[in-house]
Amino acid sequence: MRIGIIGLGLIGGSFALAAKKFNIAASLYGRDNNPKHMAEALSLGIIDYPLKEEDYASMDVILLAIPVDACLTVVLPLLDQINDNALLLDAGSTKAAICKLVELHPKRNQFLATHPIAGTEFSGPSAAFSELFVEQAQILCETHKTRPDLLEWAVQWFRNMNMKIHEMDAEAHDKHIAYVSHISHISSFMLGKTVIEKEKDERAIFKMAGSGFASTVRLAKSSPDMWTPIFKQNKENILEVLREYITNLEDFERLLSADDYNQLFEQMKSTNAIKSILAGINEKNITKQ
Amino acid sequence: MRIGIIGLGLIGGSFALAAKKFNIAASLYGRDNNPKHMAEALSLGIIDYPLKEEDYASMDVILLAIPVDACLTVVLPLLDQINDNALLLDAGSTKAAICKLVELHPKRNQFLATHPIAGTEFSGPSAAFSELFVEQAQILCETHKTRPDLLEWAVQWFRNMNMKIHEMDAEAHDKHIAYVSHISHISSFMLGKTVIEKEKDERAIFKMAGSGFASTVRLAKSSPDMWTPIFKQNKENILEVLREYITNLEDFERLLSADDYNQLFEQMKSTNAIKSILAGINEKNITKQ
Repeated sequence: MRIGIIGLGLIGGSFALAAKKFNIAASLYGRDNNPKHMAEALSLGIIDYPLKEEDYASMDVILLAIPVDACLTVVLPLLDQINDNALLLDAGSTKAAICKLVELHPKRNQFLATHPIAGTEFSGPSAAFSELFVEQAQILCETHKTRPDLLEWAVQWFRNMNMKIHEMDAEAHDKHIAYVSHISHISSFMLGKTVIEKEKDERAIFKMAGSGFASTVRLAKSSPDMWTPIFKQNKENILEVLREYITNLEDFERLLSADDYNQLFEQMKSTNAIKSILAGINEKNITKQ
Repeated sequence: MRIGIIGLGLIGGSFALAAKKFNIAASLYGRDNNPKHMAEALSLGIIDYPLKEEDYASMDVILLAIPVDACLTVVLPLLDQINDNALLLDAGSTKAAICKLVELHPKRNQFLATHPIAGTEFSGPSAAFSELFVEQAQILCETHKTRPDLLEWAVQWFRNMNMKIHEMDAEAHDKHIAYVSHISHISSFMLGKTVIEKEKDERAIFKMAGSGFASTVRLAKSSPDMWTPIFKQNKENILEVLREYITNLEDFERLLSADDYNQLFEQMKSTNAIKSILAGINEKNITKQ
């Protein structure tokens, strides 16, 4: 079986490594526009062969693990080129736009939209590791539009990697993911920006920074190449959540200004409920450096 | 030597354990207003004896590890009660108010204001561990006002625990710590609040939450008993940073609304500089559960 991976960064590289580790023997083909990443992926043994355009028709599976704007550019030509029994998947963090784009393609039923909820703030093939997806959620969208035999293969592939599979409407996915991922990144980026701006005057402050600070700004290390297109594609949902977040911060500001410490206490107390929510999240990737 | 610890939570309990591990043989006395914590601290071997009020005069060192409002209530009576060769320290997250309060006390030179930059989001004696302070910063304020022999003992105590010692003006401490700690907690609490409010309608979204979300809302587990008084004491500095943070978020909102993805990209790219800052922070405590 031949598996082709387009985009050999953290996600694509980790899928390649996981496929080698958890799946039956497969030949791994890969490509990346960055020649350095391409060379690294080969030398690290992440892929076996370069994936050339003339190879597309001979692949059994092709996985797209590139920024979500690039996905939109390549998905239709790729569907044109794959053979009649091949499966094409994407692993992007937004799902509505790509599902809409492929909707009327004659090979729509050979496409599966996925979003593996896994990652670290690091990128490139050297950040990839085979255990990235273990116990992590894999969201599948519009599964009824994928040919049953191809869907079944994909589900088994993800199960072999010990992923937790959930099905979801593409629009619902984009709305919800804004709350539990996209806003976290914006919060972290803007917190980093606020402190870096201050640092111009006061380099000394960073010796005072501890693990709490590190945790909240960790996502500010994330790749702008990946995140700018995500923010663009999920603009409307993100604007809604961002406004709610700013309103909560301004509410906090107002209560603090007014010395209403009882209300501040109550808000924090009820937000402690996040404990039980976090208890259900596998935090292992937080520590992956 | 007799060391008394008032407040046997994460910080006080960890100081007691660290004193036992890294220091010469000392008898550890402790007290906590919470009877359950008191019993736990004794049964876990964090302290050797209960610390009663009549013991205060016989202690060589007393460490205050209680919320910053409680520190202000007890620090003057404690200075009255300690013997003429004893050292009193506090470990609170704000330094200006306590330094101002003790300023004119006749035993001012037996007091040392400290802020160990260490912690996890967990509290109580069971959260304490002896390695909490290893390689972490210890900020000392107004050291010139502490009697040299007592200061020297304290510095050696912290060095034995492998802490990194920094000296700082108390007002400067409070201004800077707002940037690298207090705002992180507010950001995290309000992010948790935003998502929990949404969760009322959509419980399902948490199956989509991954490690990035967990990292940014981790501090929302923190104790409101500890944090409400900190926000109160450092109100003016926090309001300043909070306004800068909200302004940056609104700037992001405006750029996204206007589809100015080049600017968003550039902001994120320059904020990636946080990498080199974080590289200098010991992140070990992030993973302590």
